[in-house]
Amino acid sequence: MSRERVSIVEVGARDGLQNESTTLSVKGRVELIRRLMDCGLTRIEAGAFVSPKWVPQMADSDQVLQALPSTEAVSFPVLTPNLKGLEAAIAAGAKEVAVFGAASETFSQKNINCSIAESLDRFAVVCEQAKAAHVRVRGYVSCLVGCPYEGVIQPEQVVPVVRRLFELGCYEVSLGDTIGVGTPASIERVLTALLKEFPASWLAMHCHDTYGMAIANLRKGLDLGLRTIDSSIGGAGGCPYAQGASGNVATEDVAYFLRGEGLDCGVDLERLVETGQWLFSQLNKPVPSRVNRALSGKLS
Amino acid sequence: MSRERVSIVEVGARDGLQNESTTLSVKGRVELIRRLMDCGLTRIEAGAFVSPKWVPQMADSDQVLQALPSTEAVSFPVLTPNLKGLEAAIAAGAKEVAVFGAASETFSQKNINCSIAESLDRFAVVCEQAKAAHVRVRGYVSCLVGCPYEGVIQPEQVVPVVRRLFELGCYEVSLGDTIGVGTPASIERVLTALLKEFPASWLAMHCHDTYGMAIANLRKGLDLGLRTIDSSIGGAGGCPYAQGASGNVATEDVAYFLRGEGLDCGVDLERLVETGQWLFSQLNKPVPSRVNRALSGKLS
Repeated sequence: MSRERVSIVEVGARDGLQNESTTLSVKGRVELIRRLMDCGLTRIEAGAFVSPKWVPQMADSDQVLQALPSTEAVSFPVLTPNLKGLEAAIAAGAKEVAVFGAASETFSQKNINCSIAESLDRFAVVCEQAKAAHVRVRGYVSCLVGCPYEGVIQPEQVVPVVRRLFELGCYEVSLGDTIGVGTPASIERVLTALLKEFPASWLAMHCHDTYGMAIANLRKGLDLGLRTIDSSIGGAGGCPYAQGASGNVATEDVAYFLRGEGLDCGVDLERLVETGQWLFSQLNKPVPSRVNRALSGKLS
Repeated sequence: MSRERVSIVEVGARDGLQNESTTLSVKGRVELIRRLMDCGLTRIEAGAFVSPKWVPQMADSDQVLQALPSTEAVSFPVLTPNLKGLEAAIAAGAKEVAVFGAASETFSQKNINCSIAESLDRFAVVCEQAKAAHVRVRGYVSCLVGCPYEGVIQPEQVVPVVRRLFELGCYEVSLGDTIGVGTPASIERVLTALLKEFPASWLAMHCHDTYGMAIANLRKGLDLGLRTIDSSIGGAGGCPYAQGASGNVATEDVAYFLRGEGLDCGVDLERLVETGQWLFSQLNKPVPSRVNRALSGKLS
């Protein structure tokens, strides 16, 4: 019996690592990405072309990209918040880039130092140049249902940002519950509003497990037809807005969940567990993923 | 607008503490239960009448019961695996007791040293005597979808055990995913089988968060009409079958989730967070609850 397919976008080597206090070398990041490929992952965020002054964890992302194998089977999107970043990414051989917007004005101001409208103007230039270079652009929208500064975010704030990203040419928009405050009810409200305008296949879910709600929220997204999930190996990327809290939902947890639900994501769960263990030994901290802890305890 | 009600059965002071390595004194357990009452909880497991040789954490449960306030507003069920335990519980003033069975033969043998059939015969005597003393009996069934020894457990193994517990006079049966391996799909299969015979209002969900699936599984149970949830303050009760893994779903996580879903469980989330912090300072370890970590980080 063939199982229905779900696509995982592995964000540990970018979104994960850039929120960890330990910085991995270029060599370490390349090894991480190679290990993730060996797990069967085919969409692996590989870096960010941003100032190393602000995000030292992503310094020399060009060297990471250049050290990766040239393969059609795996995509390595990189974050390019502006034209300078895009040009550097293209020079390093990027075939896919990403822009990162927000549904909250305050979060946009604090995170990227401009209004939502200004950020979208900036992304328009990035998207235009990317298109000319035959580079695909993925959009992110953060603060899907809640903002660390503004509190509750309404679907009416999210829809126009997503709409604009598609107008600019993004092939997919990843919907981020950045601080993990959503529950299935709030996720359903915003997804229902979005699905009135956009097909489910254009949308990805990016859930944080800060409050332990990520898997329940992903189940709701699957119920509504979404089939693309962002996750981070081991749960890398502690949430900077909630002290002592976990951040990105772990790829191990997502893979375990999907298997239980009879859905196929094409990854090897045991290898994911090993890779999560390896990464967190590099980061010198216990792996946040509950599935990893449970299975590695059993395996050891 | 009045919100639909969900009943939480707080199991931290029994199921939680008996799986923690630190033993709380009678005074400590009474203080925990009083704090839980102050959170608004009205069903609070208070102890177990078992041999202190096997479960030292529950020693002197009679003294705990006797130190609690006499109130009709809160029930304090205690575990009574056999007639001797029941008699001691009644002598200490118990108005509600619980029996703990399993859907897995091997788990029954390893956990209570007898077959499932033998355990049910034992519970029959307990239920008969409890009825004569006007004491309510709650049933537990462990290994709802998986067993640490046998692996997958089928609905056909669960239904007859639940049926027998109702025949014996249990007013409610709590369905335990003891090792937390379930996902919404397996939970739906077993609940659907049970709901063919029993009304949803007779059944409670007892989920462990070992694999981070508890909230998603609870959402599935709510979808199918169940309205009673067992949970443990702070997530007390690390799972003894999966090293380094968490056990019972945390009451804080359940309360946060229910609030998000527009359901009322009558508890004060901030007080729960404080109580979880207090308990884990007594246990000398970090609180497992993700909601507790996220909110206490913010509050501090």
